[in-house]
Amino acid sequence: MTKPNALYAQSGGVTAVINASACGVIETVRQHANNIGKVFAARNGIRGVLTEDLIDTSFETPEDIAALRHTPSGAFGSCRYMLGSYEKHQAKYERLIETFSAHNIKYFFYNGGGDSQDTAYKVSLISQQLGYPITCIGIPKTIDNDLPFTDNSPGFGSVAKYVAVSIREAAMDLAAMSLTSTKVFILEVMGRHTGWIAAASGLAAEEKGDAPHIILFPEIPFAPELFLKRVQACVKEFGYCAIVVSEGLHNENGAFLSESGLTDAFGHAQLGGVAPLIANLIKQKLGYKYHYAISDYLQRSARHIASKTDVEQAYALGKTAVEFALAGKNAVMPIIVRKSNHPYSWTIGEAHLEKVANVEIHLPRDYISEDGFSITEKAREYLTPLIMGEDYPPYKNGLPNYVKLKNVAVEKKLTKEFIID
Amino acid sequence: MTKPNALYAQSGGVTAVINASACGVIETVRQHANNIGKVFAARNGIRGVLTEDLIDTSFETPEDIAALRHTPSGAFGSCRYMLGSYEKHQAKYERLIETFSAHNIKYFFYNGGGDSQDTAYKVSLISQQLGYPITCIGIPKTIDNDLPFTDNSPGFGSVAKYVAVSIREAAMDLAAMSLTSTKVFILEVMGRHTGWIAAASGLAAEEKGDAPHIILFPEIPFAPELFLKRVQACVKEFGYCAIVVSEGLHNENGAFLSESGLTDAFGHAQLGGVAPLIANLIKQKLGYKYHYAISDYLQRSARHIASKTDVEQAYALGKTAVEFALAGKNAVMPIIVRKSNHPYSWTIGEAHLEKVANVEIHLPRDYISEDGFSITEKAREYLTPLIMGEDYPPYKNGLPNYVKLKNVAVEKKLTKEFIID
Repeated sequence: MTKPNALYAQSGGVTAVINASACGVIETVRQHANNIGKVFAARNGIRGVLTEDLIDTSFETPEDIAALRHTPSGAFGSCRYMLGSYEKHQAKYERLIETFSAHNIKYFFYNGGGDSQDTAYKVSLISQQLGYPITCIGIPKTIDNDLPFTDNSPGFGSVAKYVAVSIREAAMDLAAMSLTSTKVFILEVMGRHTGWIAAASGLAAEEKGDAPHIILFPEIPFAPELFLKRVQACVKEFGYCAIVVSEGLHNENGAFLSESGLTDAFGHAQLGGVAPLIANLIKQKLGYKYHYAISDYLQRSARHIASKTDVEQAYALGKTAVEFALAGKNAVMPIIVRKSNHPYSWTIGEAHLEKVANVEIHLPRDYISEDGFSITEKAREYLTPLIMGEDYPPYKNGLPNYVKLKNVAVEKKLTKEFIID
Repeated sequence: MTKPNALYAQSGGVTAVINASACGVIETVRQHANNIGKVFAARNGIRGVLTEDLIDTSFETPEDIAALRHTPSGAFGSCRYMLGSYEKHQAKYERLIETFSAHNIKYFFYNGGGDSQDTAYKVSLISQQLGYPITCIGIPKTIDNDLPFTDNSPGFGSVAKYVAVSIREAAMDLAAMSLTSTKVFILEVMGRHTGWIAAASGLAAEEKGDAPHIILFPEIPFAPELFLKRVQACVKEFGYCAIVVSEGLHNENGAFLSESGLTDAFGHAQLGGVAPLIANLIKQKLGYKYHYAISDYLQRSARHIASKTDVEQAYALGKTAVEFALAGKNAVMPIIVRKSNHPYSWTIGEAHLEKVANVEIHLPRDYISEDGFSITEKAREYLTPLIMGEDYPPYKNGLPNYVKLKNVAVEKKLTKEFIID
C-alpha cells in the first residue's frame, strides 16, 4: 500500500517568514518518511487544489528546502480567494476531494490568516460528508497580528522590527537636517484595520524625545487640530517631529482619511497614501518642510532584517503542524503560547479551527496612551520580545541569496478541467 | 605653546556612513596627540563655525567615538548652506577666521558633497588673504555619487545596496501575489539629477526575468507609450512587473514628471512622488492592480543594511584626511581609486579642491541599456563591488544600538554675535 501524501499551501498576503513555516512542514515530513509519502504544494493556495495545479517538493534538494527558512514571500505562490459556503459552492468542495483523492493526499496544511483558517475548517467539515477522510491542520500567518488564541502571528514580528528600525534610522536623518531643512518626517505603515504595526514602531522610542514622536492609529479617530498642536510643540521642543501613520487612519466619521476629502483630492483613493495627506496638512497649516516614506511591500518582505523570534516561531509552527497531524489531531491550528516575558519564553499550544475562523483580535485600547499618540508600557512589554534577535540570510554578490525552487509540476490525473469563477 | 586644534563638520544630506568618516577623523587625531590638540565639531556644518557653535569631542569616550562607525545620520548635525562668494560675503569669511583663531583651530575638515567642497575650497583661499593660515581638507560624501575624481562617493554604496535588496524582496512578494491580486509594484528612489541610485537597483536582476523589470532613469526622457508596452509585455511573460523609478524622471520637455501635468494634479509638486503618477497611468491604461513604495529617507539612513565596502571607504577617507593634513597637504580631498575589479581592490588618492568644487559627474549613457530600461554589464561591473559585504550594527532590545553623543558645547569666546542670513 502506498503511503499517504501531504499537501501544503500558502494563502493571503505573504510575509518575510511564511516560507520558514513551509520549511518546517517539509523538513518534518521528510523526517517521518515511514508515515507520509510526498509533500505536494498547491500552486497559489487553494486555487491550485481546485485546478489540480500541484508541485512535487520531492524534487527539491535538502539545501534548497533549508533555504526556505531565510527566503521571504511565498515560494509556491499565494492567493486571495474565498471558497464560499458548502451549500452554495458544493462543486468546489467536491473538486477539492477529487484532487486529494487522485493524489492520495490525506494531510492538508493550510498556511494563512483568518480567512484561510476558515477555508481549512470548511475542508475539514466536508471531508467526512463526501466520504474522504482528510486531516486538516491550519498554520497561522499574518502581518496584521489579528488571529485569535495565538500570542502573536508569524510575519508580524518581522514587520514590527522593520518599522521600528526604519523610523529610528529615518528620524536620525531628520534630526541632522532639521535646522536648515526638513522639519517633519512621516512614515506610512500597513494595517488597514488594526494598529498593531503602527504600535510596533513605538518600540523605537526608548527615551524622552526619541522618535516616533507621534503615532496615528486606526483605532483613534484623527483629530487634525490636536494633531497639529502636537506637531508644533514637538518641533519647538526637539527641532523636528517624526510621525508614523497607519494606512488605516480614520476620521471621526469612520471614513478612511485617504478617502475623506481632507484635501480637495482627485477622488483617486488608490493614488496617494495617507502620508502625503498628513504631510500636506502640516505644510498648509504650519508651513514646515516635510519628507515622507511609504514602505508598502518593503515592510512585509524585508527578510534581511527579520526578527529571529519570528523566524523560529514560524518554523516551529510548521513543524508542529506535521506532528499534530501524525498524532491524529484534526481541524486544529498550532498557536504560540507565551510563558514569560523576563526572560521571554514560549511554547506551542493548539486551537480548534472552528473557533479561529473569521475572528479578528484588535489592538487593546490600553496598549495606546491616553492621548492616543503613543504606546503604553503594556504594549512595549508585549511587543519587545517579538522583534528580538536577528536572523540574517546568506549573501552573494552583495545581495541576499534567496532560493528559487524548481517547483516541478505534478502530472494531472483528473480528466475534467475546473474553471474558477 | 598649546597644540593646534582641528575642526570637523558635516554638510548636505546625511548618509548611512558619514559618521564612519567622522569616526576616522576623530580616532586618527587621537592617535596623533603630539601634533593636534582637540577635535572640535561644528554644530550643523559651516553654520556652526559662523555662530561659534562648537562641540568638544574630547568629552566622548573611545567607545562612543568607535560607535560612530555603525551609526547613521550626522552626529553633529548637518546643514544646507552656501557661503556665497568672498566678494559679496566678506564678513562671513572674516567671521570664520575669527572662530578658527579664537579656538586655535589650524585644521579644518569639511565632510560633504560638491557644494561643501566648494565651501572648503573657498575657506582655503581666503585664509592667507586674511592672515590666518589654516589647512583645509575636504572629505567626500554624497548618496548621489556625482563627485568627480573619486571612483565613488561614500554613502552611495549603502543606498545602492538598500535599493537592490528592497526591490528584490518586494518583487518576490509581488510574484507570490500576482495571480489573484497585485500585478505591478513600483519603487521610487532618490536621485533628482542623476540615475546612479536607480541604476544600482538593477543589480538585483541577475537572471532573465529577475526584478527590476523596468528602470526609469532621469537620463532617459519618459516615453509613456513605450513604457506601457513594456509593462504589458512583462505582465504577459512573467505574470507581474516590478519597476524602479527615479524621483528625477523627466518628460521629453525636460520637466520633472511629478510637475508635468501627466494627470490633472493639484500643482502641489511636493504632495505626491512620481511613483503614484506612474502607478495611476498603468491603472488607467492597462487596468492592473498596483502597489508602490517611496523609500525616501529610509534608503539613505539604512545603516542596518549598509555596504561593508562603503563603511570601510568612508572610514578610510576620514582617516586619510587627517594624515594628509599632518603631511602638510592643503586644499585637497582624499578620493577612492579603483585598482581592480576581480578581485575588487582600491586605494586612496587625492584631488585638488579647486577641481572638485561644483563639478557633477553623470551616469554614463553606456551604463544604461540601449532601450533605456535597464543597466548594462559595464554598469554592473562598476556597481557590484560597491555593495559588497555586510557590516551589521550591534543590537539592543531588538533594535540597532546607535550612539547618541554628549555633544558638549565649547564655551564661546567671541563677544560679537553673528546673525546668519
